[in-house]
Amino acid sequence: MQSKLRQHIEEIVSLTDEEFEFVHSHFTHRKAKKRDLLIQEGKSVKHVYFVVSGLLKLLYNDSSGKEHIVSFAMEDWWESDFLAFYSKNNATLSLQCVEDTEVYCITLEDYQNLCAGLQKMEHFFLEKANRGHIGSQQRIISFLTLNASERYEHLLHRHPALLQRVPKTLIASYLGVSRETLSRLIS
Amino acid sequence: MQSKLRQHIEEIVSLTDEEFEFVHSHFTHRKAKKRDLLIQEGKSVKHVYFVVSGLLKLLYNDSSGKEHIVSFAMEDWWESDFLAFYSKNNATLSLQCVEDTEVYCITLEDYQNLCAGLQKMEHFFLEKANRGHIGSQQRIISFLTLNASERYEHLLHRHPALLQRVPKTLIASYLGVSRETLSRLIS
Repeated sequence: MQSKLRQHIEEIVSLTDEEFEFVHSHFTHRKAKKRDLLIQEGKSVKHVYFVVSGLLKLLYNDSSGKEHIVSFAMEDWWESDFLAFYSKNNATLSLQCVEDTEVYCITLEDYQNLCAGLQKMEHFFLEKANRGHIGSQQRIISFLTLNASERYEHLLHRHPALLQRVPKTLIASYLGVSRETLSRLIS
Repeated sequence: MQSKLRQHIEEIVSLTDEEFEFVHSHFTHRKAKKRDLLIQEGKSVKHVYFVVSGLLKLLYNDSSGKEHIVSFAMEDWWESDFLAFYSKNNATLSLQCVEDTEVYCITLEDYQNLCAGLQKMEHFFLEKANRGHIGSQQRIISFLTLNASERYEHLLHRHPALLQRVPKTLIASYLGVSRETLSRLIS
C-alpha cells in the first residue's frame, strides 16, 4: 500500500526512508465502495486523490441531467475537480467509484506544506502536472480533429486495459457519443 | 520588457533583484512578425514561449490539410507543443504569430536548471502548470457539454479581448465549427 505510493513517486524522484515518511505523513488513506462519491457536485472539494487500486470516473451532469465523463482514473493516476480544489469553490464535477477503490488523499494545505517542505515533491508534482496538461492537450486535439470512430480507436490504442474494465455506456459518455453509436463503432 | 516577465512571475512568487537576474539569464528574447512560425510541425521544439506582446495560435493540421486551433496565446501566456518539448520528439503542432509578437524563450535544459537552481521558480511553474491543466479540463468539459453557440458565448465571457483581436475564421476553427456556422451564431 505505502510502497505503491513510494514506488510511484520514485519513478520521478528518489526518496530516503526519512523523506518518504515525511511525504506519507501528509496523506490519509481511504477505502471506498463501487458507486461511492469521493467528490459531489455542489459540495466543497477537500482532496486530490491518488488511486492505489480500483477505478474512478470524473463526471459532469449537464442541465438536462445527462452524465458526461471528463476522465477516468485508474491505478497510479491523480484525480480531482482541480478548479474547485485550488480555488476552494464548490465542485462542478463529481468523482465516483466505478469499482471498489483505495486511494490516498491529500488536502490543499498538506499539498502546499509538502511542496514547501521538500523540493523533490514540488518537482514531482510539476512533472505530473505537466504530463496531465499534455494529456488534456491531446484530448482537445482529438475532439477537434477526430470523429467518434477515430476517438474510440485512439482510446483503444492508448488505454487497452481501461476498455476491458469500463462498461460500454461509460465509454460512450467519455467519447461524447450515444451508447447506440458506440455499438455500431465496435460491432 | 524585462519588467513584464518579472511582474508576471511576481504575481505568484516574489524575487530579489539578484534572483530575477538569475531567472532572466535563462531566457532569450525574440521578436517575430505576423505569420512567422515559432514552432513548425515535423521540426524539433526547442522552446517554451512567454508572450510579452502580440498574439499566437497553436494549431494542428489534419490529414486533409484543414487547420484546427488548439489554443491562442496572448500577453502573459505560456505556450508550446508541450508533448514534443518535454519528450524531445518532433512537433505535431505549429505555433504561428497572428500579430507581430515579442516572446521570451526558454529551452528544456534551461527550464530544468532554473527549477533546480531556484525552488521559487519550480513553485511558480507548478502553479502555472496547474492553472493550465484546469483550463484544459474546462475546455474538455465545454466540448462534451456545450453546443457551438454555447461555446462561443463561453469564449466571449472568458476572453472578450481575444474576440476583438482574432479574425472570425480563426475563432470558428477554435470552436470546431465552419466559418458559416459561426456567422449564423453571431449575427
